[in-house]
Amino acid sequence: MVSAWINCRRDTKVDYRDRGLQYGDGIFETMRVRRRRVRLLDFHLERLYEGCERLNIIGPEPLRLRRELERTAALRNEAVLKLIVTRGAGTRGYRPSGSEQCTRIVSLHPYPGGAAMRATSARVRVCATPLNTNPALAGLKTLNRLDSVLARTEWRDAQIWEGLMRDVEGNWICGTMSNLFLKRDDALMTPRLDRCGTAGVMRRWVMSMSRELRLRMIERRIRWEDLESADEVFMTNAVVGIRTVRSIEWPQVATLGFRGAAVAKRLRELLEEQ
Amino acid sequence: MVSAWINCRRDTKVDYRDRGLQYGDGIFETMRVRRRRVRLLDFHLERLYEGCERLNIIGPEPLRLRRELERTAALRNEAVLKLIVTRGAGTRGYRPSGSEQCTRIVSLHPYPGGAAMRATSARVRVCATPLNTNPALAGLKTLNRLDSVLARTEWRDAQIWEGLMRDVEGNWICGTMSNLFLKRDDALMTPRLDRCGTAGVMRRWVMSMSRELRLRMIERRIRWEDLESADEVFMTNAVVGIRTVRSIEWPQVATLGFRGAAVAKRLRELLEEQ
Repeated sequence: MVSAWINCRRDTKVDYRDRGLQYGDGIFETMRVRRRRVRLLDFHLERLYEGCERLNIIGPEPLRLRRELERTAALRNEAVLKLIVTRGAGTRGYRPSGSEQCTRIVSLHPYPGGAAMRATSARVRVCATPLNTNPALAGLKTLNRLDSVLARTEWRDAQIWEGLMRDVEGNWICGTMSNLFLKRDDALMTPRLDRCGTAGVMRRWVMSMSRELRLRMIERRIRWEDLESADEVFMTNAVVGIRTVRSIEWPQVATLGFRGAAVAKRLRELLEEQ
Repeated sequence: MVSAWINCRRDTKVDYRDRGLQYGDGIFETMRVRRRRVRLLDFHLERLYEGCERLNIIGPEPLRLRRELERTAALRNEAVLKLIVTRGAGTRGYRPSGSEQCTRIVSLHPYPGGAAMRATSARVRVCATPLNTNPALAGLKTLNRLDSVLARTEWRDAQIWEGLMRDVEGNWICGTMSNLFLKRDDALMTPRLDRCGTAGVMRRWVMSMSRELRLRMIERRIRWEDLESADEVFMTNAVVGIRTVRSIEWPQVATLGFRGAAVAKRLRELLEEQ
């Protein structure tokens, strides 16, 4: 069963004038609840307020929001907690008046169990749909997600966990709902997200672990050759965690297979402690 | 006063699970009502269903939608009629199930009168925020409008009607809410919208008038030099109509002034007959 609260009240309806609906004018966080606590809550809140700042949205009062999320998480042992913050209802026209009151929507979803969720490795395929390229929005988890939606319609095979997306110049950036990491020798690489892509909370956590892993953390442009020469590839998502990529399948072009799994395995162990 | 109907019922509330809110998964049309009729209704409907097709949204039954819009327009002599069509409510996750029922939101707004709306010419400024670049979504009027929202926050001077936006490569594409046309000699040029931008209904109508105007219609990349060498520049919007651009102001860089106004004037006359 899904439960929802809008501005702290149990409700499921939003004003159609909300700019979140009218223009996708808002951001969201999707969080994992384990043992009645939000995993990586500090990272989620940090990203949320960074997003508010970049979009010039006056977000909810931080301490109040934190308590609301903690209280909501405590309702279930295992769950997915989603938070949407929009700029709020407004009049017609792109320009915000500046006096909008933000809308926050908190929803608590069952944790999708089953073998597919317990898997630690995955098959991934290449998507044809490119990511929206725009430095002004790059890295943010905004409500403008049509690129991910279209990419996710490209396959139906349940054996494929994720689709890998490129920017308009052909650089490999991220999955439809996850971030990408490549290990080669003593370097851990992840795509730079200065022009497009979503900077995931699990990505941020993994980057913070690089010293623990004794790997040099590098953000850079990733080309196909980098995927070909990687020792290990994994993808990250705040709900799912860390998945070892076993293969990247590019229909009619190539398939890459990967054997390495040690870094992702170590990260999963470290994540258990979170 | 604003009136709204959701799926044909008088209502102002939308399910928070609607994918229009969750992901901006939908499209919209903003239409001018004059003399109790929707101006350029055929063009609006044509674009709406093209958008549905490209996003694989099963839109409302066409004849029924047309009648609803006509009936709504008949309620007011002058108004702005806005239609949103979303993919409908869904479960969590980017992938549509394919069985969503689209949501349509029709709202009727007062026509903003006053001198500012009656103006036939305008000052325009250059925006720093680039357009989202993505060939998969280029041309569509989707609910993913954060680029326009951010661009529209760049100025507050009420004397500036519109902001001119570039793609990530610096080509001039369109305004935050309008399309761009340049006349030079016997050519009427407008930016190609194959990588970004919204293909406005008024743009489409103007292009359909080029023979009437005895101008060669050309869609192409537009650089600053093209603006500098234009005889006449105008911008188009379905509600506002056609505005002669008197100046383009690029803070700290340059200001261009334009004298020509004949083509826009002729187009406004032709539009009166619509």
